[in-house]
Amino acid sequence: MVEVYLDLLSQPCRAVQILLDCAKIPHRVRTVAIRKGENRTPEFTRMNPMNKVPVMVDNNFILTESEAILKYLATKYDVPEHWYPRQPERRARVDEYTAWHHTNTRPHAAKVFILEVLLPAQSGSQVDQVRLVRALSQLNDTLDKLESMFLRRQPFLCGDDITVADLLAICELMQPVGGGRDVLQDRPQLLSWRSRVQAAVGDAFDRAHAVLYAVREHCKAKL
Amino acid sequence: MVEVYLDLLSQPCRAVQILLDCAKIPHRVRTVAIRKGENRTPEFTRMNPMNKVPVMVDNNFILTESEAILKYLATKYDVPEHWYPRQPERRARVDEYTAWHHTNTRPHAAKVFILEVLLPAQSGSQVDQVRLVRALSQLNDTLDKLESMFLRRQPFLCGDDITVADLLAICELMQPVGGGRDVLQDRPQLLSWRSRVQAAVGDAFDRAHAVLYAVREHCKAKL
Repeated sequence: MVEVYLDLLSQPCRAVQILLDCAKIPHRVRTVAIRKGENRTPEFTRMNPMNKVPVMVDNNFILTESEAILKYLATKYDVPEHWYPRQPERRARVDEYTAWHHTNTRPHAAKVFILEVLLPAQSGSQVDQVRLVRALSQLNDTLDKLESMFLRRQPFLCGDDITVADLLAICELMQPVGGGRDVLQDRPQLLSWRSRVQAAVGDAFDRAHAVLYAVREHCKAKL
Repeated sequence: MVEVYLDLLSQPCRAVQILLDCAKIPHRVRTVAIRKGENRTPEFTRMNPMNKVPVMVDNNFILTESEAILKYLATKYDVPEHWYPRQPERRARVDEYTAWHHTNTRPHAAKVFILEVLLPAQSGSQVDQVRLVRALSQLNDTLDKLESMFLRRQPFLCGDDITVADLLAICELMQPVGGGRDVLQDRPQLLSWRSRVQAAVGDAFDRAHAVLYAVREHCKAKL
């Protein structure tokens, strides 16, 4: 059985969790709490010297990098083809988005969460407003591109149906919700896309995001 | 016939060029000189609103992102299987490296070239030594990981034979050569890997790097 090492506060881990859940791939989740340093134990380091989650173990085959894990699971476990289409042009669209994702959606959405939630929690100091404004502006550029390029003529990022690209993207864009900020607010095109993604994955969406919602409530309670 | 829009001073463009050349895929190269702003003409912007190279056009199918282009070409044009193995575990190793590449090998090697060659050429000022030392240190961490993780037990980054991952990586690691700096110097393990990559791709390596070698000569002449 596939084993996955996840911390559901990590965006890419949630993407992996949603695919496993939705596509009903038999699996066992091993929780690795990053805030407790569980990704730095000797045991975990032996498995992944990069000390990152997610990690997947499938019959002694150890794989890191969420994007690689999602594509491997979709290929190996014969999930519905729309997740990672086999037809070369359609597959290339997914590969195109996921390549772009690493230096756009991922860092820019993550930074907002880091500045609004993580750093203040760690240091006890106020949110650095100058850096936050800059991060929000970079994220805005990314959101503009998601709308004008990827979603221009289609309901999902890479075509007419949901793919692993949508999972990677939505999990990043949800992260600032942990600090009470919905970055898609006032963006009807992206809000519709999010609704389509939620409808396509059903309850798996909220199950994967439960820990993030709890962080949001915790942040609210402190205000 | 496949058309590719390339600037061979761009690392990912060289990776695409080497695969096309080595795998003998019939193609036509359209040169896009970034330094002349040819990636910002209305015509180019219509094709790629991100204004980036490389771009591939195959029978009206327009594709951006070097990683996606390499994988598409390897799939569609039935190149020797080692370039992008079909077996799920072997393919996952390539996807794992290429996902990692975007936030490691690529930015860290590029930054050294930007600081030593591009910025001084644009501004006429000296190399910023403080930033350069920091960039070299980040690149060193990446080189350590390439050695200790990806090349630990195998001759190429993702296994026993060359894949598109090696092309993406070597083209980034060659970039500082444009400023006269060989970042693999004193790294016997990475030097052997580079020799293996060069042997595997033959003359295609120097053909793709001719423009970079010319930049190196130009930099030398100015000293």
